[in-house]
Amino acid sequence: MYQSDKLHEECGIVGVYGNPDAANLVYLGLYALQHRGQEASGIVTYDGKSFYQEKGTGLVADIFNVKKLGGLKGSASIGHNRYSTAGGAGLENVQPLMVNYSQGTIAMGHNGNLVNADTLREELEAEGAIFQSSVDSEVILHLLARSSASSLIERIVGGLVTRVRGAYSLLFLTQEGLIGVRDPYGVRPLLLGKLKDGYVLASESCVFDLIGATRVRDIAPGEVVKINEDGVTSYKPFPPAQIAQCVFEFIYFARPDSVIFSQSVCEIRKRLGQELAREARVDADIVIAVPDSGVLAALGFATAAKIPYDVGLIRNHYVGRTFIEPKEAIRNFGVKVKLNAVQSVLEGKRVVVVDDSIVRGTTSQKIVKMIRAAGAKEIHVRISSPPIFSPCFYGIDTPTHKELIASSHTVEQIRKHLTADSLRYLSTDGMFRAVYGNTEATNKHYCTACFTGKYPIPLFEEKSRQLSLFETLTSSIIMDRAN
Amino acid sequence: MYQSDKLHEECGIVGVYGNPDAANLVYLGLYALQHRGQEASGIVTYDGKSFYQEKGTGLVADIFNVKKLGGLKGSASIGHNRYSTAGGAGLENVQPLMVNYSQGTIAMGHNGNLVNADTLREELEAEGAIFQSSVDSEVILHLLARSSASSLIERIVGGLVTRVRGAYSLLFLTQEGLIGVRDPYGVRPLLLGKLKDGYVLASESCVFDLIGATRVRDIAPGEVVKINEDGVTSYKPFPPAQIAQCVFEFIYFARPDSVIFSQSVCEIRKRLGQELAREARVDADIVIAVPDSGVLAALGFATAAKIPYDVGLIRNHYVGRTFIEPKEAIRNFGVKVKLNAVQSVLEGKRVVVVDDSIVRGTTSQKIVKMIRAAGAKEIHVRISSPPIFSPCFYGIDTPTHKELIASSHTVEQIRKHLTADSLRYLSTDGMFRAVYGNTEATNKHYCTACFTGKYPIPLFEEKSRQLSLFETLTSSIIMDRAN
Amino acid sequence: MYQSDKLHEECGIVGVYGNPDAANLVYLGLYALQHRGQEASGIVTYDGKSFYQEKGTGLVADIFNVKKLGGLKGSASIGHNRYSTAGGAGLENVQPLMVNYSQGTIAMGHNGNLVNADTLREELEAEGAIFQSSVDSEVILHLLARSSASSLIERIVGGLVTRVRGAYSLLFLTQEGLIGVRDPYGVRPLLLGKLKDGYVLASESCVFDLIGATRVRDIAPGEVVKINEDGVTSYKPFPPAQIAQCVFEFIYFARPDSVIFSQSVCEIRKRLGQELAREARVDADIVIAVPDSGVLAALGFATAAKIPYDVGLIRNHYVGRTFIEPKEAIRNFGVKVKLNAVQSVLEGKRVVVVDDSIVRGTTSQKIVKMIRAAGAKEIHVRISSPPIFSPCFYGIDTPTHKELIASSHTVEQIRKHLTADSLRYLSTDGMFRAVYGNTEATNKHYCTACFTGKYPIPLFEEKSRQLSLFETLTSSIIMDRAN
Amino acid sequence: MYQSDKLHEECGIVGVYGNPDAANLVYLGLYALQHRGQEASGIVTYDGKSFYQEKGTGLVADIFNVKKLGGLKGSASIGHNRYSTAGGAGLENVQPLMVNYSQGTIAMGHNGNLVNADTLREELEAEGAIFQSSVDSEVILHLLARSSASSLIERIVGGLVTRVRGAYSLLFLTQEGLIGVRDPYGVRPLLLGKLKDGYVLASESCVFDLIGATRVRDIAPGEVVKINEDGVTSYKPFPPAQIAQCVFEFIYFARPDSVIFSQSVCEIRKRLGQELAREARVDADIVIAVPDSGVLAALGFATAAKIPYDVGLIRNHYVGRTFIEPKEAIRNFGVKVKLNAVQSVLEGKRVVVVDDSIVRGTTSQKIVKMIRAAGAKEIHVRISSPPIFSPCFYGIDTPTHKELIASSHTVEQIRKHLTADSLRYLSTDGMFRAVYGNTEATNKHYCTACFTGKYPIPLFEEKSRQLSLFETLTSSIIMDRAN
Repeated sequence: MYQSDKLHEECGIVGVYGNPDAANLVYLGLYALQHRGQEASGIVTYDGKSFYQEKGTGLVADIFNVKKLGGLKGSASIGHNRYSTAGGAGLENVQPLMVNYSQGTIAMGHNGNLVNADTLREELEAEGAIFQSSVDSEVILHLLARSSASSLIERIVGGLVTRVRGAYSLLFLTQEGLIGVRDPYGVRPLLLGKLKDGYVLASESCVFDLIGATRVRDIAPGEVVKINEDGVTSYKPFPPAQIAQCVFEFIYFARPDSVIFSQSVCEIRKRLGQELAREARVDADIVIAVPDSGVLAALGFATAAKIPYDVGLIRNHYVGRTFIEPKEAIRNFGVKVKLNAVQSVLEGKRVVVVDDSIVRGTTSQKIVKMIRAAGAKEIHVRISSPPIFSPCFYGIDTPTHKELIASSHTVEQIRKHLTADSLRYLSTDGMFRAVYGNTEATNKHYCTACFTGKYPIPLFEEKSRQLSLFETLTSSIIMDRAN
Repeated sequence: MYQSDKLHEECGIVGVYGNPDAANLVYLGLYALQHRGQEASGIVTYDGKSFYQEKGTGLVADIFNVKKLGGLKGSASIGHNRYSTAGGAGLENVQPLMVNYSQGTIAMGHNGNLVNADTLREELEAEGAIFQSSVDSEVILHLLARSSASSLIERIVGGLVTRVRGAYSLLFLTQEGLIGVRDPYGVRPLLLGKLKDGYVLASESCVFDLIGATRVRDIAPGEVVKINEDGVTSYKPFPPAQIAQCVFEFIYFARPDSVIFSQSVCEIRKRLGQELAREARVDADIVIAVPDSGVLAALGFATAAKIPYDVGLIRNHYVGRTFIEPKEAIRNFGVKVKLNAVQSVLEGKRVVVVDDSIVRGTTSQKIVKMIRAAGAKEIHVRISSPPIFSPCFYGIDTPTHKELIASSHTVEQIRKHLTADSLRYLSTDGMFRAVYGNTEATNKHYCTACFTGKYPIPLFEEKSRQLSLFETLTSSIIMDRAN
Repeated sequence: MYQSDKLHEECGIVGVYGNPDAANLVYLGLYALQHRGQEASGIVTYDGKSFYQEKGTGLVADIFNVKKLGGLKGSASIGHNRYSTAGGAGLENVQPLMVNYSQGTIAMGHNGNLVNADTLREELEAEGAIFQSSVDSEVILHLLARSSASSLIERIVGGLVTRVRGAYSLLFLTQEGLIGVRDPYGVRPLLLGKLKDGYVLASESCVFDLIGATRVRDIAPGEVVKINEDGVTSYKPFPPAQIAQCVFEFIYFARPDSVIFSQSVCEIRKRLGQELAREARVDADIVIAVPDSGVLAALGFATAAKIPYDVGLIRNHYVGRTFIEPKEAIRNFGVKVKLNAVQSVLEGKRVVVVDDSIVRGTTSQKIVKMIRAAGAKEIHVRISSPPIFSPCFYGIDTPTHKELIASSHTVEQIRKHLTADSLRYLSTDGMFRAVYGNTEATNKHYCTACFTGKYPIPLFEEKSRQLSLFETLTSSIIMDRAN
Repeated sequence: MYQSDKLHEECGIVGVYGNPDAANLVYLGLYALQHRGQEASGIVTYDGKSFYQEKGTGLVADIFNVKKLGGLKGSASIGHNRYSTAGGAGLENVQPLMVNYSQGTIAMGHNGNLVNADTLREELEAEGAIFQSSVDSEVILHLLARSSASSLIERIVGGLVTRVRGAYSLLFLTQEGLIGVRDPYGVRPLLLGKLKDGYVLASESCVFDLIGATRVRDIAPGEVVKINEDGVTSYKPFPPAQIAQCVFEFIYFARPDSVIFSQSVCEIRKRLGQELAREARVDADIVIAVPDSGVLAALGFATAAKIPYDVGLIRNHYVGRTFIEPKEAIRNFGVKVKLNAVQSVLEGKRVVVVDDSIVRGTTSQKIVKMIRAAGAKEIHVRISSPPIFSPCFYGIDTPTHKELIASSHTVEQIRKHLTADSLRYLSTDGMFRAVYGNTEATNKHYCTACFTGKYPIPLFEEKSRQLSLFETLTSSIIMDRAN
């Protein structure tokens, strides 16, 4: 099996209200958000009488078919793509979660990660709650079911405002309509779009492009919107918080054709490459990208550095998830299944290779060796983001601290590991220049915890068990930073 | 699709404790209990550290494979076969249900049906509980999770004794061991067996035969057994109740090679046939059975009536669930897929046809016509149980009251409908004679509600909603009885 | 995997002409003939313009679905069920074989086995023919394609009469109609039936019962019938041969509700049991059958011996093909998956157990042990056919000579192996009495090679390679007979 | 379902000899050649005793698994990817074809198309041959089987040289070794590579890169190579012919990282773009590509035209084959599933869009409209090859003559249809300059029939049936050219 050495987003969500074709549009939306989660998907619909659901593991196109979509009746629907961590692959963990409670039925899709889910779970269990999934998000449903508030919005908001801490963009489908929530920090994106008939909420604007919707605006950090037959109603129940939108959405996660946090991902990626060229230009014959994630930064780099951009690595578009290796070892086999170096482009050249990030360094090393084997004279690796040395607790599947190569190696050590002639990362300042370059965004703030270790949402509580965990974790973070 | 006109048992359960091969033995047990539920199955195991589960829809042999069984680690396991009613076919409804709660993890398999599940569900939801399945049994887990009792047995028993009403044979798998419970009425069977290594609990003794276990005894009505490394501990927490074991288990559900309620099913079926012959002998040339359910009663009838037993209907053993009908109608097509009449046996004969029961009468009519078409001169239908005119609320999937042919037709009307020359059912007294014939069983009592309308476990409460349901139901019952 | 110790028929065939629902009727026919081959099935249809085909491995009900049958257009169709021997399970070997040749398209289904296929294949290959399957039947198509005869019947008959030797009931579907052929010895059955619209040819009459057709007559040994819009035309192109219908069709293969070779299988099986009782009665308390193949003979035995018939072995109707054995050995595990002994019936009894045949003796031994374990005092095994000691070369999958227990063991040795108190087979004379008992059949002749070693169709030629094979084979046969 | 408006290659082939991991390497090779055929694949191996085969429909990664590859024993193997035309999707048509004939077993994989297959088929059928597939290639096996030549090479060559006419790169696997053949025109590529252990033959050099082989050389037009334990032996049995290598392999089919016909595909594509810029430059703000096929030509264009290259269309990498459209129409839906326009890049810009070819024009129109909707001020479409107006008969699945937009429309009419501001194709001369630019290739010749209507291999014979076909065809060609 080919395992890319990338960070993985944990989810994508889409909701449609007021369209007779709701399930199909959510299906298309999930399809457009496939990059945010490839392990499992689910769709729930409501037709005014009953709720319908279909779930499965695998890619969206493999899970759903005409028959299944046909059974998902109704003009309101939510859907969820999931990137599962090992061990929790059971169907009970595939979202949307749908439950019955005193006020009827509610389905929920969650993008993000709660940091106090374990504590809440213990408290709820002490009160007699039972949990059927291992998904953190299930605590939200319990809080909601236990709320004595009279209105749905109050029930939803009640638990979230006062008890849940973490990153969450949420969609709820209920008898009363479609509800979208973005946590007060605004870590994960969530946008409102308008269809000819009805509304759509989605993680990225590429969903709107595919289904023919118009992008209206971001759901604001801390905003709750309720969409029903009366249209869109907005609530701002949360106390103000320092906005902390995930900068890595720009660097790697989001699709380049999306607009999120009010900015074009495509443009920011090119600017990241330009800043990188300003900081770390090198004399070379060509600039190439690690496709596809490095293409835009490489183009920005080439333009700013005035070095020709060329295509030196070709991607095989038929890469599947499973892959049978030959018994006899082949050099750099893993990466070759996905990428091939073009000898006629690389031979005898001084080459700048641009990628968006390095996680463990395993793939990068194979790529450098492959380029070298194709005849490159010099290989200068340029990364359009700072070194990743802290894990994310807000909805990204980062490897353990130890596995992040930058948490235990200096840049020079990493260069040696990659066998590159030079290696430069973009500085944090350069990253900010790229991200804030667009005036529309000057009043925005971003979470950069994975690059800086500064966690905007407090991770831990007084409880001793968690504290010890924290100590283990932070001691190694502190050690790293001391380097 | 071939739909047999039979009542359907809703479940079969098996649990194994203390055997390194626990999952495989439970798999075999489910296989032996396939007749109790063919829609879905699940197995949960516990290896002292983690719980493992596999579920699926379809037959046991199609759901599980070597790889799945291999992943079900541990020496303790429970499994469940399910006959699902329409609409609830989702995997979330496949048992064993497994949940996490304050004291850890618990898995449960339920055979039977609760009569106050809706009321309990409403009460629990009012307290903030959320439900993920539409299975009645889920309320038991909630009651257990909300119990403040200190021991597991007390938590399990607490809710059941005081709050749950209905028919239930239950298996629980927990960190503390395997627990079996039989409701105080003893409606559904549950037996204890001994393996060379470890113990087994199962719905029928045919499980023991297949896996090489010895039958020890019935779990008594109202008994709770806990099996752990200390062996088997018995508890009797329930107040005494009038025992009401399901007599239909003898008549049709249980496998003839099983011993349940301390009696051989095979022997009782032959005795039912003998009693029927005493009550309703007729001059005839041969006695034939509707295979396979009528074979033993037919044999008993033939012996007692001194009329030769013959094979006049042949069953196709390859009948699958789906079946594509030809566009042009074929006479009695549905039943022909399963049964064929043997002309050489039937031609010119006066034939007694013995079956165990008539539900809607649809299949019986086709069988009579098929026998007539094969040349029989006279056809005398004999049924080895009384007319079924009341629905079961204790775990059998009876059709609606209206569909039960005996609830709206006299015997003579049914005979006309079947186009038989005569039709006789066994009397209730005859049934009791057959069932009590064995001295070991004289102190036993049985539920005969489907034949008599006398429900041993109270069905209804004061709540008005349910009362109205009751009135609709009972008024038609009363009308029937007036005939 | 559960492997029954029975001989296996290699094929069943069905053809329909002149019915708008042809494919569905053939599908039903294959379904009724599932017992003649469970490994693979195929259907070909012709709609006056094109041929359509669907093939697959597994059971009929699993291979075909509404969509596939819907694509099989036309009012003429043939189908084939196959029991494949190990190694040749590829789809290229699933019949009907369909090929294009100079005169158009032809599809063929074959029940039987050719004894000179290897020789013919060598000759054809020497002339440049290429073979795509490993099915013997493919030579027939080559001979047909190479014929210079002007009419289709002549082309079909030409090769068969003069060159092919062996057992064959054949169906051809061509642009000119449906053609049925039965070899001059008449080894395998083939019957003609009449539908309301059109005709049907099938291996057994149970097909007619299911699809609502009337049995017209056997296709005679050596007869060729052509069915087209002009009706049924009969040809008798073969020189006369000594008829040699397979007696084992009566003993085990055919469904008991079929009429083949103009006799009721059901009646003959009961007569076999009666003859057996006359020859080998024993004092006993009950007669039981090994279900289901032994039921009719057991009934005949019980009647003739005046010993009560009872049900001492219960068959599990959900036995699938694959089966996962537990790691720890269970006594007589294999057979228990399919059969269970009923203790209440067997305990303390002197039991006669009737089965139709013994092949390797493996299952029979397990059954005897299972009955003994259930408490039987004496076990008398009675087999309603003579000992099988010679392989079949005419379309039955017999194990190798060595594996046939009767080829190397005396009856007493077999009894010891089975651990039975007594063992008796039906004599050859007794078998003939049962088979000829019906006056309609007195002029018939049967192949009894598996019981007698007398092969009615010459097996071998002058070619040395085959001769040596013959010698190996017959020397051991001769040795056996000398015992 | 998303249907790209591209020409489709009909096949890719790989063979390995002398490597213990042969099946796995062929599997990887087919994986690398997935772009040459996505409908079906097969692998045959030979282990010195037996041949093994696995076939299936779908993508390579879905057809084969560890178990199937494990069963493909032996150190010699060939494999085939197929792009099937509608109607012939049966497994009997999936290559390699494997047959038995007088000299043993032979398996064959064919890339290309024969122009006299129908005539040969008629002749062979007249001699009694039977055909089981509808694949043209089957005639080659018949010719080979009928050859009286004593050696395998002579048998293979005999029929090909004298009787078969068309385009073919062939692989044969036999008991005597692996044989590769390239037709005398050299229409389709075939290359020889060297593994550490053994040899490999493949359609493109990207196979060598993936499996760690070294590219040795092209198999020459008209060359036959036999690879066995004695190494590689070369034969040149064909009379000399005018070489006619398919130029479209460079333009679209081959993977850009491949070297075929001794040239780098990547470099030629960039040169095609450069020539296009020289011929058809336009004042514009950015050059964008239709990904991925237009990327290299766009880059060449941008460099030569000195206009910035940018990314204006983003491709969704999860596009599957099936796709469920919403009931309500979405503008340009089909192409949006695969591509999205980036508003931030395109808004207000004068845009050059480069693609490699236009077939029907359907997708191109949608792309132009999508770019316009994203705000582009001017859209200049540039195509890096001449207009396609003649069908290919040598192994490419071209739409019918009528469907090729260039066969019935002038460039200006096409421009209007696309709604582009300007449209220019590369001239035939420009194409030749790009292809011959590399001195290594000056002595090469190419087939350009699809652009010029000049067919290097005669298509037709004297037979009247074919002549009439020809007239229908060419009259419309001639009409087109008169425009």
